[in-house]
Amino acid sequence: MWQLYQFPLCPFSRKVRLLLGEKGVGYELMRESPWERRDGFLQMNPAGQTPVMADPSRNLLLMDSTAICEYLEETVDHASMINGTAANRAETRRLVSWFDHQFYQDVTAPLLHERMIKRIVHRAAPDARVLRDAMKAAIGHLDYVDFLLDHRTWIGGATLGLADLAAAAQISVTDYLGGIDWQGHEQTARWYRGFKSRPSFRPLLNERMDGIAPPSYYNDVDF
Amino acid sequence: MWQLYQFPLCPFSRKVRLLLGEKGVGYELMRESPWERRDGFLQMNPAGQTPVMADPSRNLLLMDSTAICEYLEETVDHASMINGTAANRAETRRLVSWFDHQFYQDVTAPLLHERMIKRIVHRAAPDARVLRDAMKAAIGHLDYVDFLLDHRTWIGGATLGLADLAAAAQISVTDYLGGIDWQGHEQTARWYRGFKSRPSFRPLLNERMDGIAPPSYYNDVDF
Repeated sequence: MWQLYQFPLCPFSRKVRLLLGEKGVGYELMRESPWERRDGFLQMNPAGQTPVMADPSRNLLLMDSTAICEYLEETVDHASMINGTAANRAETRRLVSWFDHQFYQDVTAPLLHERMIKRIVHRAAPDARVLRDAMKAAIGHLDYVDFLLDHRTWIGGATLGLADLAAAAQISVTDYLGGIDWQGHEQTARWYRGFKSRPSFRPLLNERMDGIAPPSYYNDVDF
Repeated sequence: MWQLYQFPLCPFSRKVRLLLGEKGVGYELMRESPWERRDGFLQMNPAGQTPVMADPSRNLLLMDSTAICEYLEETVDHASMINGTAANRAETRRLVSWFDHQFYQDVTAPLLHERMIKRIVHRAAPDARVLRDAMKAAIGHLDYVDFLLDHRTWIGGATLGLADLAAAAQISVTDYLGGIDWQGHEQTARWYRGFKSRPSFRPLLNERMDGIAPPSYYNDVDF
């Protein structure tokens, strides 16, 4: 069975877990805190990042969430999440990259640093200016998601796909950390309410990061 | 015919150009300076980043270098660059991500900011401390490439692949900007000398960025 090295607020592990859930692939959760830079973990992944997926019985070791998702698409036929024409598939991958890099860099990463790493590692208070900038960036980025959902049923196109999973991963971690003001983002909120009901997402929404509580509406499907 | 929006020192455009070259796909170079945030360019790509690949005659618009490379792999059979078993392909994609993100963030991006953006946009001198940190990170990262090439013919495995193209893209921009001390990196230097002779790479090495000269050994195959 696959072992997935992750921690509850890792957005890239969430993307992989959503894909595993949609495809019905079983896995065992292995808790890893990459900021501790544990020797055994660095030997598996020199980049020191979660997620890492291992299947010791088959001597398989996968890392980097993009590589892992493409691997699962290639090896598990059920519930394909990169669909349509080559151009459709490029559009899905463009948006996955946008959430993984642009949204993460501008919104998720600073929130994780200020509200999780500073609490756990530095025992310091968050920087209000950094939080404000991240939440302002979140508004601009959700405006773009609203725009996409004005023209499409799902974020990447006509069907549920990896762009939705990547979006739900980043947005849910941001929401957990109180970084999203849902007012004025009705299209994205409607999409997210629907996504929250998916069986692949429910277990993630019920997990908690030690010492950090989400807002009361966080796992409410009718927020 | 494809139009590729890029500038000479964009490492992600270089990766795409190397892939187009290996596959023998023709394209027209369109010069774009993303730091100018030109309206027409932002309308094509809201993320404001190069490369963008357009084929107006087929109404096709592709962006994000990962999505573009996967598109080319899916649509052009010649010279496949993501090869082997699903695990081999995951290893290629892991290393592409590592060069695109880790190497870029630690080495190429700070060098581009200090030696190109500051000169062109801010008319300011580079920060010696930032340059020193980037060059120190380059040494650590090339140590890792040396380690990979101790065990493999090419960076991603037994055959030339997208990991080599991603590596040559980041390393060549870093080398142009004087960021690489080749001493002590014999394995990587041997691989890079071989790669420099490839017809896909020669045209890139002969281009210059206005006002920024590379070191004398930059396009020498016997450096």
